[in-house]
Amino acid sequence: MRLAELSERSGVSTATIKYYLREGLLAPGQRVSATTADYDDGHVRRLRLVRALIQVGGIPVAKAREVLAHVDDESLGRTIRIGAALWALPQGPEPDGGDPAVIAARREVDRLLERLGWSTAREVGELSPVHRSLVSAVSTLIGLGYPWDAELMAPYAELMHQAAVRDLDFMETYPSEEEKVETAVAAVVLVQPVLKALHQLAQEEESARRYGLE
Amino acid sequence: MRLAELSERSGVSTATIKYYLREGLLAPGQRVSATTADYDDGHVRRLRLVRALIQVGGIPVAKAREVLAHVDDESLGRTIRIGAALWALPQGPEPDGGDPAVIAARREVDRLLERLGWSTAREVGELSPVHRSLVSAVSTLIGLGYPWDAELMAPYAELMHQAAVRDLDFMETYPSEEEKVETAVAAVVLVQPVLKALHQLAQEEESARRYGLE
Repeated sequence: MRLAELSERSGVSTATIKYYLREGLLAPGQRVSATTADYDDGHVRRLRLVRALIQVGGIPVAKAREVLAHVDDESLGRTIRIGAALWALPQGPEPDGGDPAVIAARREVDRLLERLGWSTAREVGELSPVHRSLVSAVSTLIGLGYPWDAELMAPYAELMHQAAVRDLDFMETYPSEEEKVETAVAAVVLVQPVLKALHQLAQEEESARRYGLE
Repeated sequence: MRLAELSERSGVSTATIKYYLREGLLAPGQRVSATTADYDDGHVRRLRLVRALIQVGGIPVAKAREVLAHVDDESLGRTIRIGAALWALPQGPEPDGGDPAVIAARREVDRLLERLGWSTAREVGELSPVHRSLVSAVSTLIGLGYPWDAELMAPYAELMHQAAVRDLDFMETYPSEEEKVETAVAAVVLVQPVLKALHQLAQEEESARRYGLE
């Protein structure tokens, strides 16, 4: 297909597509003449992921390029390929190692992972920026005096594990390896706002059930 | 207690406390002389919530003032008081009513709420900014071609409802009505980053279990 059709099918303007091409977020089309190139379904899919990262995720272009480099790295196994792309996403603030709340949070996260039997997360530990984000988020609760420990977190972690199982089940319905990896990355960026809204809506609902609306 | 002790107990600098007092985010202390005032445990708690909203939630001062006005409104029942404070939090983008993806998303959200029996959420509908955020987030997935419908969302919504039940159980461990409302609001702001990190960590773990690390 030509640029105009790619724009129509992806819902991204031709000017924006040209910008993404210049920035290396989208592979060049197959050149058919000095002024025209041919694009395929892979380009439509890739534009979808780029839009998810930049427009929904608010991820800077340079960061998106880094995420996509991992998505495209066929030398990696699926877990590492998805993991590397996810690790390149913006994370929360780095925990401050000397803060007593961070030390307590790290201990509770360690206890949580042991309790849950999340052996990969335990082995990888704070090499993973996601693990560091978790320590940081828990340290904020502890620092503010909330009693967040491994026991309190465990049921939330089990719920999020069930959500992750559903994410990967959904990912596996896509045929090619590249689509699977793209879907896994898009899911993290796009499903988070849905979960956040569902969580708040569920709180409103549960509050109304318990305490009425008066 | 005097300002210095309030600062020490809350971990907020005296300069920042004075700023919050000027901005009306913190009630004035009991004046004991021309230059000194006396503060109590309620001030320590309130500073905790203000820090959660502004430093963790990244909420602008004017918006935080609006949230706190609802928290302090004793004329409201608990559900409305929590709800009003939550509604004042920043939400996702407004859905564009004419967009076919938004129309489809609204239909699927309606079907979801009916299926779940969330009657308050159905009645309040898009009067709730949280409901509008949900429609907006789902419309993004649909607009990008992902088959997100009521059936796919239902298990995620059930999981988030279980999380909300835990949030309110935790809230109920606090003694006073004011503390309950403060805790409910703080929970939404502070627990979200924990859930987000747990969700991503669970994806890494589940991916390693399914596909190995090679």
